[in-house]
This record gives sequence, structure tokens and C-alpha cells, in this order.
Amino acid sequence: MTSQHANRPLPDAFLAQMQARFGERFSVASAVREHHGTDESPYPPMLPDAVVQATSIEDVQLVARLCHTHAVPLIPYGAGSSLEGHILAVRGGVSLDLSNMNRVLEVNAADMTVTVEPGVTRKQLNEHIRDTGLFFPIDPGADASLGGMCATRASGTNAVRYGTMRENVRALKVVTADGSVVKTGTHARKSSAGYDLTSLFTGSEGTLGIIVEATVKLYPQPESISAAICNFPDLESAVQSVIEIMQLGLPVGRVEFMDTWAVRATNAYSKMDLVESPLLLFEFHGSAGGVDEQAEAVREVTASNGGMDFQWARLPEERSRLWAARHNAYFAGIQLRPGCRASTTDVCVPVSQLAKCVTETADDLDAASFPYTILGHVGDGNFHVMMLLDPDSSEEWEESERLNQRLVERALSMRGTCTGEHGIGLHKMRFMLAEHGPESLALMHALKHTLDPRGILNPGKMLPPLAS
Amino acid sequence: MTSQHANRPLPDAFLAQMQARFGERFSVASAVREHHGTDESPYPPMLPDAVVQATSIEDVQLVARLCHTHAVPLIPYGAGSSLEGHILAVRGGVSLDLSNMNRVLEVNAADMTVTVEPGVTRKQLNEHIRDTGLFFPIDPGADASLGGMCATRASGTNAVRYGTMRENVRALKVVTADGSVVKTGTHARKSSAGYDLTSLFTGSEGTLGIIVEATVKLYPQPESISAAICNFPDLESAVQSVIEIMQLGLPVGRVEFMDTWAVRATNAYSKMDLVESPLLLFEFHGSAGGVDEQAEAVREVTASNGGMDFQWARLPEERSRLWAARHNAYFAGIQLRPGCRASTTDVCVPVSQLAKCVTETADDLDAASFPYTILGHVGDGNFHVMMLLDPDSSEEWEESERLNQRLVERALSMRGTCTGEHGIGLHKMRFMLAEHGPESLALMHALKHTLDPRGILNPGKMLPPLAS
Repeated sequence: MTSQHANRPLPDAFLAQMQARFGERFSVASAVREHHGTDESPYPPMLPDAVVQATSIEDVQLVARLCHTHAVPLIPYGAGSSLEGHILAVRGGVSLDLSNMNRVLEVNAADMTVTVEPGVTRKQLNEHIRDTGLFFPIDPGADASLGGMCATRASGTNAVRYGTMRENVRALKVVTADGSVVKTGTHARKSSAGYDLTSLFTGSEGTLGIIVEATVKLYPQPESISAAICNFPDLESAVQSVIEIMQLGLPVGRVEFMDTWAVRATNAYSKMDLVESPLLLFEFHGSAGGVDEQAEAVREVTASNGGMDFQWARLPEERSRLWAARHNAYFAGIQLRPGCRASTTDVCVPVSQLAKCVTETADDLDAASFPYTILGHVGDGNFHVMMLLDPDSSEEWEESERLNQRLVERALSMRGTCTGEHGIGLHKMRFMLAEHGPESLALMHALKHTLDPRGILNPGKMLPPLAS
Repeated sequence: MTSQHANRPLPDAFLAQMQARFGERFSVASAVREHHGTDESPYPPMLPDAVVQATSIEDVQLVARLCHTHAVPLIPYGAGSSLEGHILAVRGGVSLDLSNMNRVLEVNAADMTVTVEPGVTRKQLNEHIRDTGLFFPIDPGADASLGGMCATRASGTNAVRYGTMRENVRALKVVTADGSVVKTGTHARKSSAGYDLTSLFTGSEGTLGIIVEATVKLYPQPESISAAICNFPDLESAVQSVIEIMQLGLPVGRVEFMDTWAVRATNAYSKMDLVESPLLLFEFHGSAGGVDEQAEAVREVTASNGGMDFQWARLPEERSRLWAARHNAYFAGIQLRPGCRASTTDVCVPVSQLAKCVTETADDLDAASFPYTILGHVGDGNFHVMMLLDPDSSEEWEESERLNQRLVERALSMRGTCTGEHGIGLHKMRFMLAEHGPESLALMHALKHTLDPRGILNPGKMLPPLAS
């Protein structure tokens, strides 16, 4: 893990053209570079050589053309909330900051879609559309940008009901490596016309093109919402309940798992008095009658699996308090070990394998030399381990990497994936071959070469070099 | 429209190797070629030079390698139910019949997935899994093969609730042009690991690879199902009801539109006594209480839009009779003009534009010299016009093509698509440029060239030649 490669300096002609076009929006100041070379991953900063602020599609096209001409690495930057090192400038180059392209371009309430620039964040979007009676459900924890969420195929707590970005992006505008603008998709709910370019760019992590506009689906705000919480004597009984709930086809809005450590951390951080055992946190969306019916069906399933103290939270303030506590679980976890650095895993397995995967992982972690918490979007079979590391201990870092490796191998052996929602970035590249196999990986390389023949787009990410 | 191009004969070495490997499973008999060069499109047959029956992935790999080596066109063939000419051998070559690769390989009830060979048909699949309490919802009318449904991104009446093949394919095995086997996706419900190859192949119409295995999602059979039917004084009021139902977020299982002509044809063909005015046919899936609640909400919406005689069909036999009538609407329509050839359109528009699009289309068609019916999966904004043509009249064919052209232009101007579910095939190629624009079309060509450099896979389909 190096903090910065020795990179080729930016060519003079390139610098001159960028300065002429962008003036003060182009910077080589170290504070600006530091900010854009730092994310929420466990990696140290890796700085770009320069940062440019785009305010229009034409800006992005010009930057792409200049980078393409001069073979300068180009790294799209949204909110900087990546957990896997997506925005780190491993080969230097230019960080293309899209956060000022943050206009909501069109709210189409009748068709329940919205078209945004890439720098719009999910909270900004939901604030903007609040009065329409609609909402955008995808919720990756951080207040990520929509462009970044498209680029990483993000999801979060609501995905169990509303799907991930894969299911919720209807159309894109993308600037490709040569500065062309490609439009994908339509505003219709479905289409069988040609290759699914929308899905090709969704999840491509800035390596195939720069997303400059996205049309995403919205949903009616539920007529009624209620929450419930249920403690369990152990991991298995909690996860077994989830499996049965999914098999009943109940349209649960959210179902989140917290292990005992995560509950303990949350009690301390959020001043809660939750029973400190594994628990499930539910949210139900629907009509008043439908919500009650779902909650009752879930209560029966949890009770038959040893669930204790099933509690409803019907009042908005109770619900908000519970979910705020869940959303603060990351910060709460960090407080279990003040001054620590967190490394977060992100496997996703078939739901039938979830109990086995979580249990074996917890057994592994109980023997580790650092504290941890487990949180999960368990309705999707997706869970995270937060490993709380001494930032000065390379031994702990290496131990955490070994545990992550074992966890990913376990997930892959169960026909799961090395990342449910965080993406590959820098941190998961070494698992791509094991997950996809040599033929699929070769095809991904071929696609990358077709779209970005000079390899300027977010180089050194996602695709490990092909074995020769 | 020519029935057959003058094609290069199959090379002797190719013929010898195919005969040596496949024996009686390789045929150049004209009856076999005739069968495989005919689909449900309005085009006359276009015969392949030979037909081969594959029974294994290795068979498909060998065929691909030989076709690649000898530059022989290779056309995957499933159930032959394409409406747009997908399987016609416009440049001769070999039809690769996958219908004998029809094993259900693995039913995973706990994870609600099934893995099938490409020749399994949707009815066969649902028969196979009947006792699991699960079902596969995608229902394109014809008893299509799962491989073909993946290849065309098919959908049908249930898509409004369960999505299309885009949302329901979890993993694929694909044989590429050089005979490699590419595995895409995992068995997890979501993943952010690398490019979405599953979506790239889903809808690629045999032009990027041959789908030899598919893992698709299943759903719990609803605890309760009911149907309802409602007549309307006119088109607009029916479609306006649909818009409002979608905006309420009601999880309606199906919502189908039939125009007066379609109702009349159905009454005659299926011995029904439906009121002969525009109507909507609904199906509700859920708990007993949920189904009643949905139906009541829908009744209120339809009543407020002038809907008449809202009738429930709670008994299975009533429901079955109604839906059998809907499913036979194609055959019923044809009987409006005995001996006719049907040409079927397939646009999909944003739901907000549906009333305008259907009304303007009906106005166009009222002036046509042939009868027609309109049917629609209106919850998705998708509708079909069946134009009933004299098979011997080139004037009627040309008139129908002009009307289709106008309809597609109308849909595109409303930000819709030239095909909601039938695919491009041969018939819609001329609309690809208008729908996608030159940059997207150039990118699709680049992808095609990357995956199939010799252009052997279903040549002459989907992608129109690039303007030079």
C-alpha cells in the first residue's frame, strides 16, 4: 500500500489548455488535491496532480478530449464517500469534480421519474421532491451523489423492496473517453430496443465513461409506514427469520440486522436502551391495513424462531429515532475504539446461505485481535463487518485483510459476490478473477479497451491486469 | 422484402466436420430448413442452409468455433415464436436449434431461483415448479423458450408488477463467437462487482453470444388472486384510470387494455358476452385482505373516470375464463378477417403519454383500409396494434408499414421506445438510429465488433449499418 506512485508530470500543453479554459476552476493547490485524493476507504490519500470543477456537459467533454489527447488519467469525483478507494489517484492525473453539476433538471411526477445532474446528492433530491408525494428510495448510508451511486450500482437499506441502482436507473447521458456524449435508455418503463447500455455504464465505476445526467425512478411515498424491532437469542434465529420472511414474499420495506456489538455501540452512541442481543429492525410500507398485516405476519415468523419482545413503532418520532440509530451505527461502531480506522467488508450471498456465512464469519472474528461489529441488509443476503483497527498497526491491517479474504472466499464458495453494494474500486480488484473467471474477466477487459482505448478513465481500478 | 438472399454455399470442410460430429442431428433437408426459417413475423420464410440440433454446451461451443473459423452465419433458434424476424436466415448459414437443451437443471426454492437450459419453455418451467409454491411470472403470450426470452428481453402481462427479463435474469452462461463459455452474475440478489455482463447479453438477440444456461428469479404463488373487468365509454377514460392507478403505487398484478374491436373479436372467438366498449382487465395478487383492498382502490379510480360495471371475478374458473380470453385475443383478432396475415406493432411510451399515443394511433387506424385491434400492457405504457392484412396485397403491407412508422415516430417523440418487448430483429432495425442517436448506435456497433469480430452471430439483425 503506497500513498502515491511516481507519476508522469502533467504535460505543459495540457496544463496551459486547462488553465485557459477553466481559470480558477482548475487547481494544482495541495489542499485541493489532498481533498480530492482522500475517501472513506482504509487507504491513505493518493493525490491527483490537479483538480478541475466541471459545471456543464461541455466542460466534461473538453476535459475528456484533452485527457484522451495527452494520455492523462481522469478520475470522476462526486461526494468522495467511496469505501473502496474508487477516487484515489493511483496514477496521478486529473480529478474531475462533478459536485457543482448539481441541478435537478426535470421532475416528472406523472411518470414518477426525475432527471438530475451527477452532483445531486440523494438527500438533496429527496428534499427537492418532498412536495410531490414521491421519493427516491436508494439509500447507501452516506449522502452520496447520484452520479457516484450510478457508477457503483449502489443500494442500501431499501433495496430489499425497491431494488438497487441497477433496477432504478432508466436513462443516462455519458461522456465517453473521446468526449462524445452517449445517450442510453428512454423514459418508457421498459424497452427491448438494442443493447442495454444503461446497465453497462451503471456500475462501471468511472472506467467506461463519465455519467453526466441520470434519469431515475421515483416511488409514491407510502400511505403508511411502521417500524418494528425484535431481539433474538442468537444470530441463526435472526437470520432464519429473514429467510422465511423473504420466502413468504412479504413486501417488507427494510429488514436490517445488528449483532450484539453493533447494538451495544448504538446504545452508547445514540443513548438508546435496546436489548443487547442480535436484533432485526423492520420497516413496513403500504396502506394502513397492509402495514398491519405485514407486521403481524413478520411477528409470527420471528416468534416461531425464538424472537423476543417484538415491538412496534407506529409513531413517526419512534420510527425516526430507531432508524437514526441504525444510520449512525457506523459512527457508533467507531466509538467502540476511539481513534480507530474502520475497514468495512461487503459480501452478499444467496439468502439461504446467510446464516452459515454470518456465523462462520463471527467465529472467525471472535478470534481477531481487534473489535468488530456486524450490520446487514439481510433481506438481500448482504452484510458488512466493521473491523476497528489501530491506524498505526500494520499487523492489524494485515490481519483484517486476511479475514476479509477468508470472508470473500466463503461468500464466493456459496455462489455470492465479493461486493453487494460498495463496488470494486481498488480494494476488491484481487477478487475479480475468482468471482468472474478468466473468460468473463477477459471480456470485461475487451469492453474496457473498446470504450477507453488509451486507458485514461479511472485507471488502475476495478479490473486487475490479465494474467499473460 | 426478399424471401432469400443469394448466399455463399457452406464450405465443404465445414459441412464435413458438422456431419462427422452431429450425424443425424445436422440436416440440410428442405423441410427442416423451412421450419427453422419461418417465424411469427409478417416476413416470408428465409431459410438457413442447414440446421443443427445441440444437446450440450460443448455442442454449442463446437458449432461456434466452426462457424467462426469458416465465417458461417450462426442463428440461435429456440421456439420460433419471434414476431420481428429474429430467426430468419437473411444471409443463410446455420440455424442452431436449442430446443432439445430443455432440462431444468436446478430448482433452488430457498433462494427462489431456477437454473435452466435455454430450450426450456415458460409453460414447461411453471409445470415443473408447480409443487414448490413458486412461479415464474414472465409471460410473453407465446410459449417461448427461456433462452429466447432472455435474448429479446421479453415481458408480457405480469411485467407491471414483476418486471421484465431485464429484472429477472440473475446469471447466464453464454457461448461467445469464438466458442468460449462466459459466466455472468452470481446467485446473490445483488452485486456491485464489475460490468453488468448479464444485462449486456439480456436483449442482445443472439448477436453477441448464444445463451446456453440461465438462472432466473421465481416468486411465491400469491396467497390470493382475484380479477376484475371494467368497461369505459372511451379510450381516454380507460387509460387515464391506469395512469392514476400507477401513481397510487398499487401493486396490481396485471392491467390489460382491449379496444372495442378486440373485445368484439374475443366475444366471437371465445364465446364471451363482454360489453363491447374499451375495457380494462385487472388481476390482483396478494393476501386475501390485500387483494380486496387493491380491488376497492382500483374500483374507486375507475368509477371516478367514468368506468362502468366494475365486475370482480373471485372464483378461479371465472378468472381463468377471462384471462384465457385475453390470451386468445391474438387468435380472436385474426378471425376478424379470415385468411389474413397479422402485423403487430409494439411501442412503449411513458405512462403519462399513453392516452394521447393510443388515441392518435386509433385515429390513424380508423382511416386505414384494413381492420385492426388494440391490446395493451398499459400499466407499462406498452401497447400493440394488430393490423389484419390481405396476405396478397402489397398495398396493404405498405400501408401498414407507413402506419407503423408513424406510430414509432409518435412514440419516440414522446420519449418512448420502438419496441417494449418484441425486440428489434429485422423489422425494427430502421428505427434504431432515431431512437438511440448516432453515438449510442456507434457504441453498440463497437461492442458487437468486440464480441463478434467476424460478424457470424445472427448477422443482419438489430444493428442497421452505420452511415459512412
